[in-house]
Amino acid sequence: MLPEAHPFDVATQLTGEHGHYRGHTSERYANMIGPFGGIIAATLLRAAMEHPERKGDPLSLTINYGAPIADGPFEVNARPTRNNRSTQHWWLELRQNDELLITGTAVFATRRKTWSSTEAAFPAVPPAEKVAKFSPDGRPAWLKNYDIRIIQGSILDDADDSQTLQWIRDEPRRPLDFLSLTAICDAFLPRIFVKRKQRTPIGTVSFTVYFHITADELAAHGDREVLGSARALRFHQGYFDHWGEIWTPEGQLLATTSQIVYFKE
Amino acid sequence: MLPEAHPFDVATQLTGEHGHYRGHTSERYANMIGPFGGIIAATLLRAAMEHPERKGDPLSLTINYGAPIADGPFEVNARPTRNNRSTQHWWLELRQNDELLITGTAVFATRRKTWSSTEAAFPAVPPAEKVAKFSPDGRPAWLKNYDIRIIQGSILDDADDSQTLQWIRDEPRRPLDFLSLTAICDAFLPRIFVKRKQRTPIGTVSFTVYFHITADELAAHGDREVLGSARALRFHQGYFDHWGEIWTPEGQLLATTSQIVYFKE
Repeated sequence: MLPEAHPFDVATQLTGEHGHYRGHTSERYANMIGPFGGIIAATLLRAAMEHPERKGDPLSLTINYGAPIADGPFEVNARPTRNNRSTQHWWLELRQNDELLITGTAVFATRRKTWSSTEAAFPAVPPAEKVAKFSPDGRPAWLKNYDIRIIQGSILDDADDSQTLQWIRDEPRRPLDFLSLTAICDAFLPRIFVKRKQRTPIGTVSFTVYFHITADELAAHGDREVLGSARALRFHQGYFDHWGEIWTPEGQLLATTSQIVYFKE
Repeated sequence: MLPEAHPFDVATQLTGEHGHYRGHTSERYANMIGPFGGIIAATLLRAAMEHPERKGDPLSLTINYGAPIADGPFEVNARPTRNNRSTQHWWLELRQNDELLITGTAVFATRRKTWSSTEAAFPAVPPAEKVAKFSPDGRPAWLKNYDIRIIQGSILDDADDSQTLQWIRDEPRRPLDFLSLTAICDAFLPRIFVKRKQRTPIGTVSFTVYFHITADELAAHGDREVLGSARALRFHQGYFDHWGEIWTPEGQLLATTSQIVYFKE
């Protein structure tokens, strides 16, 4: 008997071929309106990953959320726009009922050993097992797919900034790959909830991830938790930004990420 | 007699209509190989700005540099991919001899007054007139179009991190707008030169800007200098990231920006 597929793999599953795929929303990754943005970004990246002409590993990804996705089937198209010796550029899109809802671009790269240096500092944090698990009860469904342990910057604490530090992993556990790492880059409470200690309607407009590791380095991490750090720099006239880092417990910086987010008031 | 056009306006000039435009490289904005990336990003953004269906101001921009541009004419296409009530999504591309070299996406937004807060801190810096002007002599041509005053983080100082703080404005002066702000977001020496105090071949792969202000707020700034701050978080296996902020002297955060950059060794 085959082992049951992980909910993440079910949610990002695509059928079809050569860049023209079909997917389906997953109730388990539902957000307030439409699916969790991180699962959509991972699904679009998966379309490029599964393309037969794909070369190398993801280096950068930008996803623009044009409109909410309705529950049901959708189409994902991935098209290489440029092939270089060590990089490959991609156009990504998600359509539903022939309507273009989500657009994106990605760059894949074949990496090689060079001089290396991590300038950012791994934050001083207690180990995951010493931090209380965040309860997803009463929250959007997608949060139940993560074991999140917030060290600093929840909606409940009394800090007056937007900085969050959290341990996070897939629940149930799943070996980390570029797809789950992409979703984890978006798996933070909105910065404005943390800053203002109250909720307001929000929606990510554009989301970017830079990957700092190869598939081999990711595979070595296995299914353990990663540390996420995020903060906003400015909230102004209906939009705020979000800047984040994802680290292994050993202090390897896996990805840096940004987004610009709409807020209602 | 008409006043002579500013070199920036000449370099980003487009002819054509309805999203199909022609431009031409400018010797004045030449880099080591091909044009300065900031002028190309500004030219692609200009194509959306000049499109008759454009609504609102730029909110986010991502440009992917697929291949160097040869000196000469090029085509720029800008196509709205989605129109919402308050946001408009765009596809951008630059072609030369029918070859797709540069791709991008942008989101424009019609902004309105909301709760507002700037969490990032304006850096402690001396005023521009107290800082020595960076000499563009012996550097790529594009640097002559900027008055840059490096407070911290040049290729010559002895700091061991990649953090740069610099005053910058167009030279000659030009009122700041979304196009020149875009180019200024890319007008830093490469982080790896600052970190290692040596040059190595580099090239920006993907570049993102988030705009935090409206056209009216930008107009109020006029042609004065802005403060740029930039640093890298990780250099690894041929690529490094770059995170930046652009501020008015009064401490208004105009834009936040990121890029992922190839380096040779």
